[in-house]
Amino acid sequence: MTDQTRAYEALMAFQRTTEALAQVAGRLGWDQETVMPEGAAPQRAEEAGAMEAVLHTRRTDPRISEWLAVIDDDALDDAGRASLRLIRRSHRRHCAVPADLATALARLTSRSQRIWAGARADEDLAAFLPVLAEVVRLKREEAAALAEGGAYDDPYDALLDDYEPGATGAGLAEMFDEMRPRLVALRERILGADHRPPGLSGRFDEARQMDLARDLASRFGYDWAHGRLDRAVHPFSSGSGLDVRITTRSDPGDPFNCIYSTIHEVGHAAYEQNIRRDFLLTPLGRGVSMGVHESQSRIYENQLGRSRAFTGWLFGAMRTAFGDFGIADADGFHAVVNALRPGFIRTEADEVQYNLHIMLRFDLERALIAGSLDVKDLEEAWNSRFSADFGLRVERPSQGLLQDVHWSVGLFGYFPTYSLGNVYAGCLHAAMRADLPGLDAALAAGDPAPATGWLREKVQRHGGLHAPREVIARAAGRDAGPTPLLDYLDEKFSAIYGL
Amino acid sequence: MTDQTRAYEALMAFQRTTEALAQVAGRLGWDQETVMPEGAAPQRAEEAGAMEAVLHTRRTDPRISEWLAVIDDDALDDAGRASLRLIRRSHRRHCAVPADLATALARLTSRSQRIWAGARADEDLAAFLPVLAEVVRLKREEAAALAEGGAYDDPYDALLDDYEPGATGAGLAEMFDEMRPRLVALRERILGADHRPPGLSGRFDEARQMDLARDLASRFGYDWAHGRLDRAVHPFSSGSGLDVRITTRSDPGDPFNCIYSTIHEVGHAAYEQNIRRDFLLTPLGRGVSMGVHESQSRIYENQLGRSRAFTGWLFGAMRTAFGDFGIADADGFHAVVNALRPGFIRTEADEVQYNLHIMLRFDLERALIAGSLDVKDLEEAWNSRFSADFGLRVERPSQGLLQDVHWSVGLFGYFPTYSLGNVYAGCLHAAMRADLPGLDAALAAGDPAPATGWLREKVQRHGGLHAPREVIARAAGRDAGPTPLLDYLDEKFSAIYGL
Repeated sequence: MTDQTRAYEALMAFQRTTEALAQVAGRLGWDQETVMPEGAAPQRAEEAGAMEAVLHTRRTDPRISEWLAVIDDDALDDAGRASLRLIRRSHRRHCAVPADLATALARLTSRSQRIWAGARADEDLAAFLPVLAEVVRLKREEAAALAEGGAYDDPYDALLDDYEPGATGAGLAEMFDEMRPRLVALRERILGADHRPPGLSGRFDEARQMDLARDLASRFGYDWAHGRLDRAVHPFSSGSGLDVRITTRSDPGDPFNCIYSTIHEVGHAAYEQNIRRDFLLTPLGRGVSMGVHESQSRIYENQLGRSRAFTGWLFGAMRTAFGDFGIADADGFHAVVNALRPGFIRTEADEVQYNLHIMLRFDLERALIAGSLDVKDLEEAWNSRFSADFGLRVERPSQGLLQDVHWSVGLFGYFPTYSLGNVYAGCLHAAMRADLPGLDAALAAGDPAPATGWLREKVQRHGGLHAPREVIARAAGRDAGPTPLLDYLDEKFSAIYGL
Repeated sequence: MTDQTRAYEALMAFQRTTEALAQVAGRLGWDQETVMPEGAAPQRAEEAGAMEAVLHTRRTDPRISEWLAVIDDDALDDAGRASLRLIRRSHRRHCAVPADLATALARLTSRSQRIWAGARADEDLAAFLPVLAEVVRLKREEAAALAEGGAYDDPYDALLDDYEPGATGAGLAEMFDEMRPRLVALRERILGADHRPPGLSGRFDEARQMDLARDLASRFGYDWAHGRLDRAVHPFSSGSGLDVRITTRSDPGDPFNCIYSTIHEVGHAAYEQNIRRDFLLTPLGRGVSMGVHESQSRIYENQLGRSRAFTGWLFGAMRTAFGDFGIADADGFHAVVNALRPGFIRTEADEVQYNLHIMLRFDLERALIAGSLDVKDLEEAWNSRFSADFGLRVERPSQGLLQDVHWSVGLFGYFPTYSLGNVYAGCLHAAMRADLPGLDAALAAGDPAPATGWLREKVQRHGGLHAPREVIARAAGRDAGPTPLLDYLDEKFSAIYGL
């Protein structure tokens, strides 16, 4: 065996153990959100911290540099080269941040998340801003440390790169500039239309909602032998490879919450479950970026789950499950499912307004990291922008900048991946439609399998083999851009609202 | 700060992280037995192996020796000295076993457990014996490595010490010699008596069994804020400190399975939940030995849960839950709960015969480790001993030496701790009765709190502060020995069977 081969094998064995430990740490998070006894929280914080310390030590292990120095990437196959690229990137990023700073950030964000939750419950923004200022200060330090040596032009890009490798603030700004006028125009036309879909009324048995959620998960291809469905306050999916769990919630007044949370999380989970088995517990055995991940959850939820064809089937399934709930026909049901209403909350927004929420956060967080916006001016910046974009006046902090947890836990650069996911989903959907002329007929029969099979082959199975934009380009046959999404939204909402 | 103080604090901080990681590894086991998707097993094996490797590396970390060399135990308080004693012991034991042997044992026992399960299902002893011989060979090597340098007179003691620090094969043999004649005599008298309690008939709704299990757990002091109850094929309790979970099972034909499994596991869990909070995530924050652990589960289950006083209350509770189930009165119910019947299976045995099963295993496993019994002669040795002790001929391997998982996973030295637990429970029960004259009145009202409170103060809260026999001696006011247990059994079963 050559030195190179030996080094490569040693590195991959070391990495495999790290991947297995990362799965354990992830499952600890699942446990915390689903089954953990509430009194266990203080001990759990120490357990999670201990796992993070173990992982950090492994990811910065000096032997990784030694192995990497010996290995000739050109002698490897595609998967080997892709693995090495991801290991190099992870090692460089973890080593670039001083241990003291990493520890300080972990402690601070744990504290600031608690403060955020209390401030949101009390509508007390002043209680949160000082700790947020501290988080921004440390995140700017982290970004500077990551950008040292010229790896990134803009410190914001250094943070973004953690969630969407290769994406840049400048590129996203350009994308958003292209999206904004068309979304604003569409929103104006819809809100100016005569048509107003009714809301749902009545109560929807929660056990039947969960039965329907299980049926929907199966239809969208969720693999129950390698997963399970539980309830959580904020639905999420968790894990990679052979153990990928999803959660949902139910609200007796709003069955769509349970239904579309489930379909969304199945999109995330299917990505993880369908990755090539030979990538298991390697760097390629996970979804390649947050944006590509979100493209899967969004296309399952929106382009498939909220399509006219599938909602036609769902209308019947809901009538069977819940009886008459005051909606006369499938067209009316489709309009209810896709109703567009003014509102403050990102997570409750429809497909048209959602990206406008993201643009607001993107511009503000980019300015915070650049240092051109101070935390003390953030509320005013948020509220005036919100008023300009949505025509609504923020009355309470929980309607405004306290609505999302992200910044409190240091997630700067994360929000734009939601919109990237939507844009990617738009590209994939256009290509899929061209490939699958019978898709609507299948969806109308409650069968998304042609679409989920297409996504499995084109996107999901490749895991981390290709860079994010390359995944989309290969699958969609074009470079990723917002036009397909914008065309789809125009067409869909014009039909619903008779524009 | 002196070097000593610095070393002590560094060691305790290091240890705290190790304890936290051990809790994570334990919770992974809980997950596997309760909620894990079945297809996740191969990945889980790698995850569990990775956690074991992390723990082994920490437990053999050379810095531990360096810190220990500097620290003067005499300068510490009782808790500090006890912690150091446990850390020294763990470090010595983990360092004594060569890494190759530890790895080989972990791989082999994982394989042999699967082979055992298949062999038991197929009644194919021949399929299991070769791998068992290999397990015995490696366990003998491990025992020899642990005993090197004169730490143990008998290699068997080196294995035993893992589960019951300070216990010896010679000491246990003496204890069993004292127990055996009285247990055999009692058994003969009972089986020769005219009285034969009837069996239960009917079906018992499983949801109501689980409701009753929850009520019983609460009555026996289970702390739901720091635990939860789930179903498992083989009930167990898991975790220490602020997160101690229990499991049970239900069988529609046999409600006692659910009831007494639950009370038994609450005994284990209460021990872990009630340890002093300042011992959390220290070496003192876990039950001190398997024997003391089993003393808690047994006294909850048997001396309390199967007492005439408590079964009087339970009879009423079961009639409320299940209606009439064919038992006329509380005396008859007490006899049913404590019925003694001939049988092959240890885990189904009553309080009298249980320890006879253990003696058989103890003698055989001691001979295997000593090398005086060969695996190829084990079946004959088991069956002839069983026939002599129980008057029954083993017809199938699953009635005989394939009935228990222990040896397949390398647990040699574990079985006798079950009997030690019974003996300890006998001592504690006698002392508790002397201290609590009103105990039966409380039990008859369905309230074990005086007893569980006594055990919490006398035994449970001290965690690992005292050595196992010292825990019992302090609580019971006498050295541990089998007489109180034997007296209790004579009295109890004489009353039931009119001897």
